[in-house]
Amino acid sequence: MNSSKTRRFNFEDLKRFSVALLSATGVDDEKSTVISEVLIEGDLLGHSTHGLQLLAPYLSDIEKGLMKKTGQPIVISDLPAAVAWDGDRLPGTWLTAKAIDLATDRAKKFGACSLTIARGHHIACLAAYLTRATDQGLVIIIMSSAPENNSVAPFGAKSGVITPNPIAAGWPTSGDPVLIDVSTSITTNGMVGRLKNENGKLPGDWLINSNGQPTNDPHSIIGSLGALLPIGGIQYGHKGYALGLLVEALTQGLSGHGRADPVEGWTGEVFLQAFDPRMFGGIENFLRQTSWVANACKQADPIDANDPVRLPGERGLKLKREQIKSGIILRDSIVSPLIDWARKLGVEPPKTIDER
Amino acid sequence: MNSSKTRRFNFEDLKRFSVALLSATGVDDEKSTVISEVLIEGDLLGHSTHGLQLLAPYLSDIEKGLMKKTGQPIVISDLPAAVAWDGDRLPGTWLTAKAIDLATDRAKKFGACSLTIARGHHIACLAAYLTRATDQGLVIIIMSSAPENNSVAPFGAKSGVITPNPIAAGWPTSGDPVLIDVSTSITTNGMVGRLKNENGKLPGDWLINSNGQPTNDPHSIIGSLGALLPIGGIQYGHKGYALGLLVEALTQGLSGHGRADPVEGWTGEVFLQAFDPRMFGGIENFLRQTSWVANACKQADPIDANDPVRLPGERGLKLKREQIKSGIILRDSIVSPLIDWARKLGVEPPKTIDER
Repeated sequence: MNSSKTRRFNFEDLKRFSVALLSATGVDDEKSTVISEVLIEGDLLGHSTHGLQLLAPYLSDIEKGLMKKTGQPIVISDLPAAVAWDGDRLPGTWLTAKAIDLATDRAKKFGACSLTIARGHHIACLAAYLTRATDQGLVIIIMSSAPENNSVAPFGAKSGVITPNPIAAGWPTSGDPVLIDVSTSITTNGMVGRLKNENGKLPGDWLINSNGQPTNDPHSIIGSLGALLPIGGIQYGHKGYALGLLVEALTQGLSGHGRADPVEGWTGEVFLQAFDPRMFGGIENFLRQTSWVANACKQADPIDANDPVRLPGERGLKLKREQIKSGIILRDSIVSPLIDWARKLGVEPPKTIDER
Repeated sequence: MNSSKTRRFNFEDLKRFSVALLSATGVDDEKSTVISEVLIEGDLLGHSTHGLQLLAPYLSDIEKGLMKKTGQPIVISDLPAAVAWDGDRLPGTWLTAKAIDLATDRAKKFGACSLTIARGHHIACLAAYLTRATDQGLVIIIMSSAPENNSVAPFGAKSGVITPNPIAAGWPTSGDPVLIDVSTSITTNGMVGRLKNENGKLPGDWLINSNGQPTNDPHSIIGSLGALLPIGGIQYGHKGYALGLLVEALTQGLSGHGRADPVEGWTGEVFLQAFDPRMFGGIENFLRQTSWVANACKQADPIDANDPVRLPGERGLKLKREQIKSGIILRDSIVSPLIDWARKLGVEPPKTIDER
């Protein structure tokens, strides 16, 4: 199989396939369903490094006992607007979706709710969770970090300490919601890994090699040598560094678990919040402001007259609508390991749209 | 007076001078004190574009009736962990300090508290407020935006829509707190204005001119033509744009007031939060994580062996200690307008440290 080739699948077929694979390993029904929904939502939105590409490594971690198949998080603290869970190595995608359900319910009663999850497994694509809140007229913020990884350099350093530490958020407007999901490093581990495999280069000098030279070559990251640069790079990377440290403080400091503890494998430490505009300045005022600025951005003078200004999430939501209709395009490098797992677990692989 | 010359003053003398000027215009005692403390804290930390440089324009706005001298904010919503105020054109610095007092008290009872301030006047340097919370062992986040200004371009645009929309935050470690304060644009209006006056250039192409060309020339911003670029610039400015829009949604959307409303003059729309680690994963665990990552950053391999990695806020806190001891250095371009105000209001100007 050529890893840069692609195939097109119906998204419901992919979901059934993903659920079947997870169930075959003993993951309970609710968790199999939610994990699959979150991964496929990532692909629908076009975040192909954080969609079904993750399922094979998740299955591998389940097999090794590094991701639990059943159980509930341990409640460390539970105040109306402040909740802390120990995720107990359960699937991070399922924990995060469950946490959003709780935070959104609480926000509707108490105006706001903040929740931390320590020791959950990886949480995949943060953008994939946002409409769970925005569909209810709520604001949501999600941040995560991975204490087992240290690929991102502090500003002024040539060795890594923290992780790409994404900040995601969503909020309603009178039209589509605005959905943001940005790492606080210029690029991500997933993108560097993919370009390394494909012998590609990054669009800019977004890495630093072990000699302290900025570079676009993913091969300059060798084990613990070289690092990803924080947003702002060597010129004003104090900004990305500062935001990355904030994500560390909220996801690992507040949750109470992180880099200071022994590595337990692939981990997503999570901080999330939901807000109900009805209990601040009112939902009409909220929508009036967010719609005004969304429209003003779309009407701003574009640099390229043929490329109008977009809102964050706009391209993803458009792609999602298209892919629900005409199928999800997956690289063979994503499909191939899943077909190996299907053979191993005795699960029927999905047909492509052409084969249906 | 040469605007690039500087003079050194005792910080207590500057505070007495600032309080006297504000009091002479009729600002009540509590507000005069807090406004002065916040501005001088900005200078102590080295944020010279957001310290006493702002006092002359504040006095001017007070004289014109654009900043109220007495009164209290109007409470729009008041739940234990979710509060919304209408700032009623009161001094933004005083409103913000008062809001932090409330949010920190609430966080100690309820774990977290989020608060919005609509329609306050300008809030100056966000970093100047942070130790009010970190000194109590709490985490604080402050964001602000200015709806009367539209200097920052969306990603892909050459005209401005939003503002530099800073994100500030502070949290304790076992040593000094970490204090961050970063605009979501590469540079700020204050820096562009100063370099314009001094005929200087920016360190990089952080602006976009009206032809859509990135530039380092502050003179390329002419009225509504040209704009500041979001962090990431023309290469990956979707990140700064996304974060800038998040600040808009929280400060103007949640507060219920912003760009969709008539301009009332110089305005700071504010969103702030306090968190008590004791009601999440515990304060010992919090300090263990934040201290671990702070130490790891300081020990990371520096690009320049003579320039070790610093923590955000480290340089500011060091400068503050030095300036408390040996005086605050102010440019004559800051002092001169204040001496004009002193003459006008019949207030004795402060002596420099050399004159004392």
